Amino acid sequence: MSDFNQPLGGNDMARFSGPATMMRLPSQDTAEGLDACFVGIPMDIGTSNRSGTRLGPRQIRDESRMLRPFNMGTGAAPFDRLQVADIGDVAINTFDLKKTVDIITEHYRGILAHDCIPLTLGGDHTLTWPILRAMKEKHGPVALIHVDAHADTSEHMFGEKEAHGTPFRRAWEDGCLINDKVFQIGLRGTGYSPEDYDWARDKGWRVVQAEECWWKSLTPLMDEIRATIGDAPVYLTYDIDSLDPAFAPGTGTVEVGGLNTWQALEIVRGCAGLNLVGGDLVEVSPPYDMSGNTALIGANLLYEMLCVLP
Amino acid sequence: MSDFNQPLGGNDMARFSGPATMMRLPSQDTAEGLDACFVGIPMDIGTSNRSGTRLGPRQIRDESRMLRPFNMGTGAAPFDRLQVADIGDVAINTFDLKKTVDIITEHYRGILAHDCIPLTLGGDHTLTWPILRAMKEKHGPVALIHVDAHADTSEHMFGEKEAHGTPFRRAWEDGCLINDKVFQIGLRGTGYSPEDYDWARDKGWRVVQAEECWWKSLTPLMDEIRATIGDAPVYLTYDIDSLDPAFAPGTGTVEVGGLNTWQALEIVRGCAGLNLVGGDLVEVSPPYDMSGNTALIGANLLYEMLCVLP
Amino acid sequence: MSDFNQPLGGNDMARFSGPATMMRLPSQDTAEGLDACFVGIPMDIGTSNRSGTRLGPRQIRDESRMLRPFNMGTGAAPFDRLQVADIGDVAINTFDLKKTVDIITEHYRGILAHDCIPLTLGGDHTLTWPILRAMKEKHGPVALIHVDAHADTSEHMFGEKEAHGTPFRRAWEDGCLINDKVFQIGLRGTGYSPEDYDWARDKGWRVVQAEECWWKSLTPLMDEIRATIGDAPVYLTYDIDSLDPAFAPGTGTVEVGGLNTWQALEIVRGCAGLNLVGGDLVEVSPPYDMSGNTALIGANLLYEMLCVLP
Amino acid sequence: MSDFNQPLGGNDMARFSGPATMMRLPSQDTAEGLDACFVGIPMDIGTSNRSGTRLGPRQIRDESRMLRPFNMGTGAAPFDRLQVADIGDVAINTFDLKKTVDIITEHYRGILAHDCIPLTLGGDHTLTWPILRAMKEKHGPVALIHVDAHADTSEHMFGEKEAHGTPFRRAWEDGCLINDKVFQIGLRGTGYSPEDYDWARDKGWRVVQAEECWWKSLTPLMDEIRATIGDAPVYLTYDIDSLDPAFAPGTGTVEVGGLNTWQALEIVRGCAGLNLVGGDLVEVSPPYDMSGNTALIGANLLYEMLCVLP
Amino acid sequence: MSDFNQPLGGNDMARFSGPATMMRLPSQDTAEGLDACFVGIPMDIGTSNRSGTRLGPRQIRDESRMLRPFNMGTGAAPFDRLQVADIGDVAINTFDLKKTVDIITEHYRGILAHDCIPLTLGGDHTLTWPILRAMKEKHGPVALIHVDAHADTSEHMFGEKEAHGTPFRRAWEDGCLINDKVFQIGLRGTGYSPEDYDWARDKGWRVVQAEECWWKSLTPLMDEIRATIGDAPVYLTYDIDSLDPAFAPGTGTVEVGGLNTWQALEIVRGCAGLNLVGGDLVEVSPPYDMSGNTALIGANLLYEMLCVLP
Amino acid sequence: MSDFNQPLGGNDMARFSGPATMMRLPSQDTAEGLDACFVGIPMDIGTSNRSGTRLGPRQIRDESRMLRPFNMGTGAAPFDRLQVADIGDVAINTFDLKKTVDIITEHYRGILAHDCIPLTLGGDHTLTWPILRAMKEKHGPVALIHVDAHADTSEHMFGEKEAHGTPFRRAWEDGCLINDKVFQIGLRGTGYSPEDYDWARDKGWRVVQAEECWWKSLTPLMDEIRATIGDAPVYLTYDIDSLDPAFAPGTGTVEVGGLNTWQALEIVRGCAGLNLVGGDLVEVSPPYDMSGNTALIGANLLYEMLCVLP
Repeated sequence: MSDFNQPLGGNDMARFSGPATMMRLPSQDTAEGLDACFVGIPMDIGTSNRSGTRLGPRQIRDESRMLRPFNMGTGAAPFDRLQVADIGDVAINTFDLKKTVDIITEHYRGILAHDCIPLTLGGDHTLTWPILRAMKEKHGPVALIHVDAHADTSEHMFGEKEAHGTPFRRAWEDGCLINDKVFQIGLRGTGYSPEDYDWARDKGWRVVQAEECWWKSLTPLMDEIRATIGDAPVYLTYDIDSLDPAFAPGTGTVEVGGLNTWQALEIVRGCAGLNLVGGDLVEVSPPYDMSGNTALIGANLLYEMLCVLP
Repeated sequence: MSDFNQPLGGNDMARFSGPATMMRLPSQDTAEGLDACFVGIPMDIGTSNRSGTRLGPRQIRDESRMLRPFNMGTGAAPFDRLQVADIGDVAINTFDLKKTVDIITEHYRGILAHDCIPLTLGGDHTLTWPILRAMKEKHGPVALIHVDAHADTSEHMFGEKEAHGTPFRRAWEDGCLINDKVFQIGLRGTGYSPEDYDWARDKGWRVVQAEECWWKSLTPLMDEIRATIGDAPVYLTYDIDSLDPAFAPGTGTVEVGGLNTWQALEIVRGCAGLNLVGGDLVEVSPPYDMSGNTALIGANLLYEMLCVLP
Repeated sequence: MSDFNQPLGGNDMARFSGPATMMRLPSQDTAEGLDACFVGIPMDIGTSNRSGTRLGPRQIRDESRMLRPFNMGTGAAPFDRLQVADIGDVAINTFDLKKTVDIITEHYRGILAHDCIPLTLGGDHTLTWPILRAMKEKHGPVALIHVDAHADTSEHMFGEKEAHGTPFRRAWEDGCLINDKVFQIGLRGTGYSPEDYDWARDKGWRVVQAEECWWKSLTPLMDEIRATIGDAPVYLTYDIDSLDPAFAPGTGTVEVGGLNTWQALEIVRGCAGLNLVGGDLVEVSPPYDMSGNTALIGANLLYEMLCVLP
Repeated sequence: MSDFNQPLGGNDMARFSGPATMMRLPSQDTAEGLDACFVGIPMDIGTSNRSGTRLGPRQIRDESRMLRPFNMGTGAAPFDRLQVADIGDVAINTFDLKKTVDIITEHYRGILAHDCIPLTLGGDHTLTWPILRAMKEKHGPVALIHVDAHADTSEHMFGEKEAHGTPFRRAWEDGCLINDKVFQIGLRGTGYSPEDYDWARDKGWRVVQAEECWWKSLTPLMDEIRATIGDAPVYLTYDIDSLDPAFAPGTGTVEVGGLNTWQALEIVRGCAGLNLVGGDLVEVSPPYDMSGNTALIGANLLYEMLCVLP
Repeated sequence: MSDFNQPLGGNDMARFSGPATMMRLPSQDTAEGLDACFVGIPMDIGTSNRSGTRLGPRQIRDESRMLRPFNMGTGAAPFDRLQVADIGDVAINTFDLKKTVDIITEHYRGILAHDCIPLTLGGDHTLTWPILRAMKEKHGPVALIHVDAHADTSEHMFGEKEAHGTPFRRAWEDGCLINDKVFQIGLRGTGYSPEDYDWARDKGWRVVQAEECWWKSLTPLMDEIRATIGDAPVYLTYDIDSLDPAFAPGTGTVEVGGLNTWQALEIVRGCAGLNLVGGDLVEVSPPYDMSGNTALIGANLLYEMLCVLP
Repeated sequence: MSDFNQPLGGNDMARFSGPATMMRLPSQDTAEGLDACFVGIPMDIGTSNRSGTRLGPRQIRDESRMLRPFNMGTGAAPFDRLQVADIGDVAINTFDLKKTVDIITEHYRGILAHDCIPLTLGGDHTLTWPILRAMKEKHGPVALIHVDAHADTSEHMFGEKEAHGTPFRRAWEDGCLINDKVFQIGLRGTGYSPEDYDWARDKGWRVVQAEECWWKSLTPLMDEIRATIGDAPVYLTYDIDSLDPAFAPGTGTVEVGGLNTWQALEIVRGCAGLNLVGGDLVEVSPPYDMSGNTALIGANLLYEMLCVLP
């Protein structure tokens, strides 16, 4: 009998039933006593095109019911070594994005005070900035692996500093990042200037455009990233729209020619050995995910993050 | 500060977030200490046409997030007087319908042992038979208000005694019903014999075909039903397909020309004053409920049942 | 053992299986030996807004699998007295509407040569004109009960005489109709002139606008219609868009404020006693009918037509 | 040849093509020279449950392509007497609800400066407050006909004054309303207190709960409302969720037991003769409107508003 | 003029019409006189997560209407050399999985008595076990090519021996398989033990996990498989969930990171030259296949199986 | 300040609002003064399986709202050097395909008279033939890059010369093509004869079947194509069904095993340097594109065509 929380098994309760928590794990109100937690940030008021990501955490949890405890691809057994629970959602203020940003930072201060690693179910990408602020307070600046179709480094959107297209500019301004250990993977599409990605490159960040990823395994890239990052604390932020819409149709700011799920798994699995201090999976938009499969893929990627936690 | 459990409020946690329990109520594992409980029976192996009702309890809970505590139509305030919680799902055996029937009866014996009134989230209609068996053990035979497009009194389906078209024949065989206090409302469509409804009428049951309901309020009918039932214990079983498919598209055995939601509310509200010992809402099939509104209506009708509990 | 074809029963083959013919009846290639037949005209090239009705016959047949032989609302037992089969689809030319019109007339000449009453699964409403031409050759001019949101009496659409907005002008030009026995029920919406319906009224047709139908049973109207028509041969053409989109979302030229399904059943059942020589159910568009329920309602109305055949 | 703008006709350009403006009318940048205009406010950041209304104006315009110029139900011919155009969308700030509220008021000041009556395509219901502020500046306090499932008179939502549940409390605070000429029709569902509607009643507003509307025409109610309002300037705000979800599934805060479309048409048509100074149709949420029919109904109701303008 | 049955051509009857048989082939009641047949097993009572596969055979047949007789990729001309028909569905007992298993075996005994090769339209994967039992009676133990996301070799599910996760354990127990000629391709995801696949490996089966398939053609693998199998009788069972959900969204137990359709075609085409004695395509779930494309891919893979029959 | 039209930016008007023109560009009625134009041909009466492409231009425009001016993958800045606008739709006759073909040719004569390069939003593939007729009048025979799942070189469909399966046979008959500079890429699926593609090969056309494209970049193929074409005028016709249905589910004649979007981008980008005289993107069918992503990909490919114009 394990001392750790276990996901509710399909032979105890049919998969289509039981609690709608992440992986049907036990839930608790705080991160106390946990090595890692799943936490939802249900928001879409930072989105600029289609909305709906406010329902992301609910649907990711729902579809995560398929997940069993062991990773057949890597052999990982996270529930043999980590105490994990679902600690519910952040009580964001859906009518005020600026206040929501501060609510998130405050909430993550609380999680980190328990020395618990948060794996976040988004929600739109605005949320990574306030998380990174809390991370900095705990760990100092962190390395960043950012998988996305978009750079999310705009100076502003419609004149605002808070939006889902700006979090990494904000995090940089706040000194949250170790600039020579920042990686942006999967960027593509159209922009407001042909130099859109140069802002990041000027800071020393490594930008890997989607075109560089086509037709090949990303395992070598991850080897290189691990070598560069070494044992620095690292945060992994995974925007589901990094995937080609064939693989993740249920999202709001779709760009053609993206990554596939083989690469997605290679990226997350390629983080094994890093000193991960947190991760998030953002931008799943259930109203555009009729089959539920985008949420299900999101749930899988969050599980894979759990598998590579130190 | 109320002594009773309260649904989580929208000003404490945005409606699209928080726990996916019924009405975002607290959950507990048993019915201990409760006046009433919401309980799910996630099954569809008793369905004969479209399946999918196995996901009914999950989606009804999800969409119930919209429900606030007070009933603006009737003034009812159930959470001011009843201790209510969501006690989760019955662990049915999805590979064996016969065993599932017995699992359900056993589970409801446990609930009733706590003197708690169960309000059940279905699931296909097979489930009402095993619930009625447990009801009989507790209360003796009960009066029955059965709202449905179908009589569900077949001798068998494909040679089997257990199916979603047979529960009330089975309940009658088991002596669960007070025959002069059984009402079937909304029956319609096509049948295997022009005498299909006569089996019930021969038992003394009152059959109100859908055609009798068209164009009028059902409040007078409910007055009459209350007068007939008096203070006998009564069970309310509400099949969502009693509604016309315009009002409840997300179900599996659709019949044209059904009830509307005004009548549905009149029926449930018309049970106020009866000695209700239990109720269920069955046959919501999420895969055919793209907008989620059928589940939401199901959640509302379950809430209205709560409002009329003694 | 009946001498007549019977729909395949749910206790012989589960409803979600078996042949995808209308009501899972036997199929045959011609109308020979039949009292009535179901026949599909899979076309949408006469539609002016959303298309998709080409798949109407396939989906109506698919969803008709729910239908059992006896009518519980009226007691009708059509398969006890009529030899009925599904005779498949007309091989229309989907690239040429004008040729398709002639193909249809020719095909119905063949059906009528067998003294078989055709019940047609549409397909867009253009198809009624060529059917009426064949009817006239067999029966002379006929009375017409036309249920629809639209008058379909335009002189032309985009300069063309063949389109789904013109069939009854064409049928009138061809002398197919008994002008004092023509009824148009359910008309509503917007038009190209406030006098759009006056063309019909000038011909002696009775136009019953949707507003006249609100809030009341149409049984009295049908009594009146039967009295007027007497024993003249009568054709019933039912456009599914006569229904309010709440009741029939899956169609292409939607108008707000339409009939409900109670009225639809009253209309078709109100034809009992008339000398029906044919009927059609048109404009079901499966791509806009996600749940399949519009097709299912269409199947029911076709079955109800069968029930009132002489 | 009319001197007024006309909708592009289906015989000039097939209905599924042409400009995606409201009714395929000409567009212009300002309200100059117009008697009435259609204007979009694409927002959903004031919603509290499902989002998606930001795409409402786009989809209402798209589906409005079905609308022809003349009203067959009432004989109205708005394009024979009014100069009407589509003046596009308000450039709201989707990242800041408070700024958006002010942007809207400023934009409507501009429209009203041209003596043009705005008919607004929403967008969530927050938008009516800033419109009413502009109305007050132009006309002084106005009478209000408010059709909705919800009172929208909360003091705050999650502590905020700006949200889709508060606009009429805000408008009252700002002195925008003639309190004895305010009507709320269709209210229902659950609330935070059994006295939720009493706040309005205490102000002298007439609250017509949905239950009072069941089973009957609302034409007598509208007669009464017209008599009460007299020739005061009146604003009509129509929340699509006033309709039962059968009739308008594509919205975000669904309540069971609502109005039907016959009543919706009776309400808007019942405004003929009033001194309407503006109207809006809000809360259409395209992601939950798979068939597009909710948007189409919204377009129809906006057209009916145009038909009753003075 | 061919002596063999031919699919109905698109120039004889538009593709959206005609009989909804597989490839619009003639249907017959038994396998008599056939070299190969298409047969449906409409079941989902063996599924453990999402249901809906009971409608798989109907939708596969419907979407197969696109298929023309010749294979442009391989040059195969199956209807020039094989007599093929659609022999309809097995009359399973949808209320009893254990009886259904026996019904299937008995039904396939009948097919095999005619020396006809069955190609089965599923239905959930439980069905392969009873087919293999019939195969063994006819051919002795067979080689197996099993393409799937899951091993389907569980000892039991919820205590039951019959379920869609157990068929190959059952077939092994029954001695249906030649253990050194069993191949499982595409396995991945999460499990109940890190050793889940070792049970098969211990039996001598070759397990090719999905990760081994990424980034490469499977033609070399198929060369190797053919060499190993030689001229032994071989059964091909293709679970549509072997494909990544991007390629086959319409299924019930989705796993991320699967095969693509290029590999699927390479696998089936790579069976040319083998002594195929049967094949099946399982787990298409229409309610999750909104576009119909998963069914269409299933139909294509069944056609490709036909092309490689001996 | 640019002298050229610019797409409306997201910081001026949120992306979910503003005019529903292609890329939210200015619209004008003719091609006068333009270097390139976007033009819609809203038709589906040439389709042979699923319809719905008549709404393609509307939905492509709608989803194109995401596109910003600069191409981050290639650095192209089309709006820095070309005057571009959306010139609306061709007023096709949806009731007569033959007339529509002539209407299209006439309309493109008008566009080409302005020396403007048309980029066409389809609509079904029939439309390319009449465009090529106009191209020939302007430029003489042209080279052709044809990306598609189907050859579209049938002699006829159902006896008709005009259909979406015949345009390139017709264009060849009309002398529109330079036969040794015609490339067909992506062909696959089933056919009416194993020699279906030989007709093209006999004319000197290069046919690249889908199987030749699997597993590799198409950049080398495009190098070869550019070398062969040289500076001849070339027309690019892109059928969205060339893509595997995983990448483009929203289309009507789906074939398994197609191209991916990486290859699609390689093909269009590989046209840089060619003397492109026009291009089209056809066969997007919105009713089968629930998420809107197929339209969005179509919009991207049209934008990529703009980026490689001379």
